[in-house]
Amino acid sequence: MSETLVQGRILISCKDRPGIVARVSSILFGLGANITESAQHSTDPFKGSFFMRIAFYLPESSSDEVKVNAAFREIAAEWAMNFHYTTARKKKRIAIFASKEDHCLQELLWQHRSGALDGEIALVVSNHPDHAELARHFAVPYHHTPISKDARTATEALQLDLIKGTSDVMVLARYMQILSPEFIASYDRPIINIHHSFLPAFVGAKPYERAFARGVKIIGATAHYVTGELDAGPIIEQDVQRIHHGYTVDAMKKVGRDIERQVLTRAVQWHLEDRILRHDNKTIIFH
Amino acid sequence: MSETLVQGRILISCKDRPGIVARVSSILFGLGANITESAQHSTDPFKGSFFMRIAFYLPESSSDEVKVNAAFREIAAEWAMNFHYTTARKKKRIAIFASKEDHCLQELLWQHRSGALDGEIALVVSNHPDHAELARHFAVPYHHTPISKDARTATEALQLDLIKGTSDVMVLARYMQILSPEFIASYDRPIINIHHSFLPAFVGAKPYERAFARGVKIIGATAHYVTGELDAGPIIEQDVQRIHHGYTVDAMKKVGRDIERQVLTRAVQWHLEDRILRHDNKTIIFH
Amino acid sequence: MSETLVQGRILISCKDRPGIVARVSSILFGLGANITESAQHSTDPFKGSFFMRIAFYLPESSSDEVKVNAAFREIAAEWAMNFHYTTARKKKRIAIFASKEDHCLQELLWQHRSGALDGEIALVVSNHPDHAELARHFAVPYHHTPISKDARTATEALQLDLIKGTSDVMVLARYMQILSPEFIASYDRPIINIHHSFLPAFVGAKPYERAFARGVKIIGATAHYVTGELDAGPIIEQDVQRIHHGYTVDAMKKVGRDIERQVLTRAVQWHLEDRILRHDNKTIIFH
Amino acid sequence: MSETLVQGRILISCKDRPGIVARVSSILFGLGANITESAQHSTDPFKGSFFMRIAFYLPESSSDEVKVNAAFREIAAEWAMNFHYTTARKKKRIAIFASKEDHCLQELLWQHRSGALDGEIALVVSNHPDHAELARHFAVPYHHTPISKDARTATEALQLDLIKGTSDVMVLARYMQILSPEFIASYDRPIINIHHSFLPAFVGAKPYERAFARGVKIIGATAHYVTGELDAGPIIEQDVQRIHHGYTVDAMKKVGRDIERQVLTRAVQWHLEDRILRHDNKTIIFH
Repeated sequence: MSETLVQGRILISCKDRPGIVARVSSILFGLGANITESAQHSTDPFKGSFFMRIAFYLPESSSDEVKVNAAFREIAAEWAMNFHYTTARKKKRIAIFASKEDHCLQELLWQHRSGALDGEIALVVSNHPDHAELARHFAVPYHHTPISKDARTATEALQLDLIKGTSDVMVLARYMQILSPEFIASYDRPIINIHHSFLPAFVGAKPYERAFARGVKIIGATAHYVTGELDAGPIIEQDVQRIHHGYTVDAMKKVGRDIERQVLTRAVQWHLEDRILRHDNKTIIFH
Repeated sequence: MSETLVQGRILISCKDRPGIVARVSSILFGLGANITESAQHSTDPFKGSFFMRIAFYLPESSSDEVKVNAAFREIAAEWAMNFHYTTARKKKRIAIFASKEDHCLQELLWQHRSGALDGEIALVVSNHPDHAELARHFAVPYHHTPISKDARTATEALQLDLIKGTSDVMVLARYMQILSPEFIASYDRPIINIHHSFLPAFVGAKPYERAFARGVKIIGATAHYVTGELDAGPIIEQDVQRIHHGYTVDAMKKVGRDIERQVLTRAVQWHLEDRILRHDNKTIIFH
Repeated sequence: MSETLVQGRILISCKDRPGIVARVSSILFGLGANITESAQHSTDPFKGSFFMRIAFYLPESSSDEVKVNAAFREIAAEWAMNFHYTTARKKKRIAIFASKEDHCLQELLWQHRSGALDGEIALVVSNHPDHAELARHFAVPYHHTPISKDARTATEALQLDLIKGTSDVMVLARYMQILSPEFIASYDRPIINIHHSFLPAFVGAKPYERAFARGVKIIGATAHYVTGELDAGPIIEQDVQRIHHGYTVDAMKKVGRDIERQVLTRAVQWHLEDRILRHDNKTIIFH
Repeated sequence: MSETLVQGRILISCKDRPGIVARVSSILFGLGANITESAQHSTDPFKGSFFMRIAFYLPESSSDEVKVNAAFREIAAEWAMNFHYTTARKKKRIAIFASKEDHCLQELLWQHRSGALDGEIALVVSNHPDHAELARHFAVPYHHTPISKDARTATEALQLDLIKGTSDVMVLARYMQILSPEFIASYDRPIINIHHSFLPAFVGAKPYERAFARGVKIIGATAHYVTGELDAGPIIEQDVQRIHHGYTVDAMKKVGRDIERQVLTRAVQWHLEDRILRHDNKTIIFH
């Protein structure tokens, strides 16, 4: 192997039809790619939507974005295909938002340092000053943007200044402020949130208190993309833990912390590795 | 051990106060009991409610219901205690209700024959004739009570005739008819239902279709006691299975069948073994 | 869609190299296939082994085994490729072997009747007469082949007579006799066994007794292909359940029954759907 | 509630016999205790061993160790009872040992700071200098005790100097050195280890490599008390995660890290809360 190889991946979506796999893999073969992962999904092979993720090694000389996009231009136009090519070289930059609780923030920082997150943590933003020393320990810039009722718009403007152009994805790591629709529209990049319940159960505030009141025997957490509608965006990942009648709300929160940080970490990781496609307010995730 | 021993158990609930365990265990010691299991729960040790289950062996001569109740009469009155004594000798009689689908019915019949259910299956009632041969295979009486819009009251009257006095608990094994409040009031015994979702998500009809539409990553089932409010009674047991974007509604139903029959079986088993106390629309379950 | 479509699938394995996906999907496109599932695995993209499963719809006129094999002949020869084409029309025939315990047998019979197993249960063979009535209930031929120390060879000969040519896979559904190497060689088709432990823990006899003695907190079951070496064949599926110090050996066996029948059913189902490839005493399973 | 209340708990073991619960709870009632948790286990109610854990509130005036021990002296002598009383006031001091990998160390430090561990982390000892800054971040003393083949005895002597008298339990948080029998005997306090496999599968070195070679479908971790025999001490806790054929050894290690730190944390927590009794190389754990 004399030439350097570059790890690339493409995400594809279009109307399903025969021949897509053959055509796409031929183009990749023409570029000198060696496919290492390939997965596909069709909502219906006859009239549905088709989704595909292919990971591969490319010779450096063919790995340029312009070259790869050109190779797919014809098929993309002909089949009205959404086509997204990335390389592992260009790491996604993450902006983490946190409030008082530190478990999700701590987990993301540690997982990143341990090499499990394929991205860069660009900055941490919080409406509390509490995590400055933690961010310093992990050598990540920390911005304290206090929230007050009167100055919410000003604060959001400040936050947008911090993250626009410096981040590719925003992660709400138990950030307890609701983002305004204007903020979401202005950021214009994916936002991942962790909700502390097994959605769609217990949408909204105080889910553990309500789970306690209902007497459920299992609690959970849900990572989802943020949309304008509260806790209603496409679900990325969920997980659960068994509890019993002896669990107080506080004990549930303690268990919940462990579920939340695991679920959020997995969701962020899959997003960074371009494993997620969104369709019809749902996610297709290629493992 | 010259005298025959009888397996007994008591369920207790009262206002919490110091000394309950000491007093109860002294009375049992006085009856010659050897305690084999003991579990307790308090919603708050200072001003809450106290719950306890004790299982024990009693010499046959002390095991009579009248004798045991007499021994506890004083404390029960003094502390306004709910007290419930049963012996393993007196098996609870189960009335199973089923509709078209047979997985929960089949499971209960098989688990009973294999010795895993500590009760007797008194009869099977269905609004379909389909399971007659299955019931015959397991040697259980089968009653086909067709449902028509016009004759619902008459059918319920017929069903009550079949199960009142012949059963101690009614199990809705994917019985797809809603019982009238009059029916529930008239039966006056516990009714256990299996709902094909992870409650409180997807209360009501077509939960798998709605889980598919929401794009959840985990599906579940919930066994609960039936109250007047649909799918809102005390939850006994829940369990879940992971799914992914490739699951159609039918694939989810297939996975769901396995969750449903396991969850329902566990709930019925715990009920038969007097492991469940109800409090505040929740259950306390002593394993 | 004027022509009838046939569901087909191919399993492929060969040395990894660039261009396999492109070539295979082009051939399928040439046959008029519409790919519905596709999954691949490589032990190493540069010098490893490559495995692939593709499921598709074929026009009936192209679905003939001779035609499909011919289309792949060239590539199969050139790349020393193992190539296996089947259609959903040709159901695999299953020979179930059982001993005293009926939970796995009962489960396979019920799952088959409910439509969850994509094969035909050809016959049940047992060294006990106990399950004749169960087999009759499910309308499956039952053969009682008693085992005696002296006549083991004769019994195995009788069993081979029953299953050779009438079955495509043999399932040991808690069959407690060890098959002779001669039997395994003579049958010459895959044999799936369920072992009642989380292999490689507790290889051999009495796994629950040994799990109890060791004080494990989780028990499991393992479905694997049978090879000459006891409990050492390629693992297909495993699952586990949490237990605690209060579980007697009997309680563990009761829980174990539920794990065993689920694990075995999944393994059989995947085998019937041609989802499993064997390599280096391991399995690659395409879900 | 005019008098201050102290949280206490007792662990009891003795030969099983009728009347233990009555007698023990009477003594506690006499001390003014309000029982909040009570759990018991018997290996056999007629001739087995009996174990019990009771948690309670005591008026401060009765909570003195001398007083409580005196109250139980008679029964302890009469029934050859092991009796262990502790209060929540006296936190156990933990000595954590770590090597290169930091995930278990990081988790224990973070869980402690977040309030989930009912003890004090007295010091961290490592044969590597790498975690000094991490320990500083959590304000815990860090001791680097390098290991060399020649000076093993000297190093162990140094380590014993550090932890004897300053710690009540030693936690091997992926400490990759084998402790000598002399060290274990000299420390004379409980030692908890996390083994990176689902014991008794893959005892000894390189468990993930061996799990990969065997082709298991689930991997796990095991926390256990350390005894003279490698990986053979009483199991405290185990947990598992599903993997598939696509997992390399490195991917398994990454998943394994998450299992290991959760399992170890739970084991340490239960030990700190006096929830664990040892018997016959097994653990009885009262949740």
